[in-house]
Amino acid sequence: MSAVPPGGTIGILGGGQLGRMLAHAAGRLGFDVHIFTDETDSPASRAAAKTIVADYHNHAALAGFAADVAVVTTEFENVPADTAKALVGAGAIVRPNPSALAVAQDRLEEKQYFIANGLRTAPFARVDTFEELRAALKEIGFPAILKTRRLGYDGRGQARLENDLGLQLAFDAFAGAPLILEGYCAFEREVSIIAARGEDGAFAAYDLCENEHRGGVLARTRVPAQADAAVAAEAQSEARRVMDALDYVGVLTIEFFLMADGALIANEMAPRVHNSGHWTIEAALTSQFEQHIRAVAGWPLGPTARICDAEMENLIGEDAADWRALAADPTARLHLYGKREARAGRKMGHVTRLKRSEAS
Amino acid sequence: MSAVPPGGTIGILGGGQLGRMLAHAAGRLGFDVHIFTDETDSPASRAAAKTIVADYHNHAALAGFAADVAVVTTEFENVPADTAKALVGAGAIVRPNPSALAVAQDRLEEKQYFIANGLRTAPFARVDTFEELRAALKEIGFPAILKTRRLGYDGRGQARLENDLGLQLAFDAFAGAPLILEGYCAFEREVSIIAARGEDGAFAAYDLCENEHRGGVLARTRVPAQADAAVAAEAQSEARRVMDALDYVGVLTIEFFLMADGALIANEMAPRVHNSGHWTIEAALTSQFEQHIRAVAGWPLGPTARICDAEMENLIGEDAADWRALAADPTARLHLYGKREARAGRKMGHVTRLKRSEAS
Repeated sequence: MSAVPPGGTIGILGGGQLGRMLAHAAGRLGFDVHIFTDETDSPASRAAAKTIVADYHNHAALAGFAADVAVVTTEFENVPADTAKALVGAGAIVRPNPSALAVAQDRLEEKQYFIANGLRTAPFARVDTFEELRAALKEIGFPAILKTRRLGYDGRGQARLENDLGLQLAFDAFAGAPLILEGYCAFEREVSIIAARGEDGAFAAYDLCENEHRGGVLARTRVPAQADAAVAAEAQSEARRVMDALDYVGVLTIEFFLMADGALIANEMAPRVHNSGHWTIEAALTSQFEQHIRAVAGWPLGPTARICDAEMENLIGEDAADWRALAADPTARLHLYGKREARAGRKMGHVTRLKRSEAS
Repeated sequence: MSAVPPGGTIGILGGGQLGRMLAHAAGRLGFDVHIFTDETDSPASRAAAKTIVADYHNHAALAGFAADVAVVTTEFENVPADTAKALVGAGAIVRPNPSALAVAQDRLEEKQYFIANGLRTAPFARVDTFEELRAALKEIGFPAILKTRRLGYDGRGQARLENDLGLQLAFDAFAGAPLILEGYCAFEREVSIIAARGEDGAFAAYDLCENEHRGGVLARTRVPAQADAAVAAEAQSEARRVMDALDYVGVLTIEFFLMADGALIANEMAPRVHNSGHWTIEAALTSQFEQHIRAVAGWPLGPTARICDAEMENLIGEDAADWRALAADPTARLHLYGKREARAGRKMGHVTRLKRSEAS
């Protein structure tokens, strides 16, 4: 496809904060944005030229959406295969491509894909029955994490298994969903790499991010990560291998466990912009949001150089009630997502603090 | 008024690129934006939650707009007095206040206001008749600039007078509009100061900008300006005096001629964010757009520190046809405004280039 010219329309599946920040970035480059979401009054819809509110399985609505946009992208990883197929059937260019989306939304396929492309993962096994769980635990040992293969995010859809006690109960709680058992990694740090691949195969990655989770939800990201340059380079080269293999166009994120010996254990990937990349808005020459829009629009990628060290802190649930203090804090670059209700565990905004680089 | 909480709605009069960039900044802080404009399919409307397209004298439409927003601000200086009055009558809080808007939209009142607040201006005289023009020229001498008192911008509504030849013709071309004659300043540089004043009277200014016009339209801005620190400080203190006197809330810009002897000659002010402040998006801790939204929402002002030197170049008319080359230039941070048609002289976008600070 030729590059979408300024004034063209980018379609985004999903109405959350990632869609909102993508819409701002697209608007800055002169694009219009149309949002397709099943949520009324969504954060992204209020930053877009047009919003279609419909079920993701409503083929007529998807076809109408596809007809008005030059390219369709997504702000969430769990795009139903049916939705992607309907869009392609309606003539839409979908980026990243539907098979990349399919790999990323199944933890088992994702891990197999990592292995096939030379990445290391924690030991894992497919678990559909209680007997398979028993057998897998014999291989993998305790502690281990039992996860749904699909639709898990922010720590949802997983249980940590410490020993045989209550095993049946834990298994039954998943109510027959396809599962994966993963060995626990006694990691030293959690890191993520955010990278982009253009239509022409060009690749650009941001500096490795170091992440701190609380209750399964990202709490804080620091850049650069405390990691050797060789480790950071390895993470980039692994991201590149995965993206090349998927013929990926757009921004992709891989989360890794960094072990004490410097080994990178790939945990999961997100075929989209990522919470651990929000610091790029202020502290990189091109934000991850602009980069994703550039890629899916067929534009050249922008430079990813980091301007300074940075720390991003999520505002979760009631954290956002502190907006007065944060607005008055000159060190805090405040972002709020326009969500109507501050439910517990809900990402309401984030704050980025720029730090003087220690190296310079 | 108490601060508008995140989730509240900011109303913006005007649908141009300044409204669009204000909408992006407001959205980042969690606000919704409603646009009121007489233009269909405007750049700002495509970045806003809601747009009312109506005449600026349509009181019913203005009242409907006012009813849904916490505060009304503007992206252009020529808000009709009638419009401001109708909004205030409908119970709206208008920021900056209507009397500040009134001063800034009449070149004669503006100059008188500058003088009253201790700023220097070029010699000027009110001109309503050809006889008054003759008399004024005797005082002021050639060369001089004849300007409409109202509704001029980007060099429109002005004529440079070099001598008596064709004087009647030049006068007649203004078709009876109220005029002002201004003496020509043989300036060394054109500079502008962009400053903000909060509801609480807090004041914050950006570094002095140096501007280069082409055909009456801003072509390029460089920060910092080549000017002594004392000159920059004087510009800030003059802006503060003017804003305090107007009980101004929001961002205001004053354009000055900088003379060879270091004197600042106030040329005009704009009661809004300004083209010469676009560099603040990348190169200041708080952009002028966020700063204006903070002020009108009753939030604390953000820090205005400059991160690095910067140069902003406008893309005017056909300049924007170069978007492919600009998108591929890693030194260019590209902004396009989503205007449908690239008419000659029309501001289509801008490019900011970050420079290493020469001082550091």
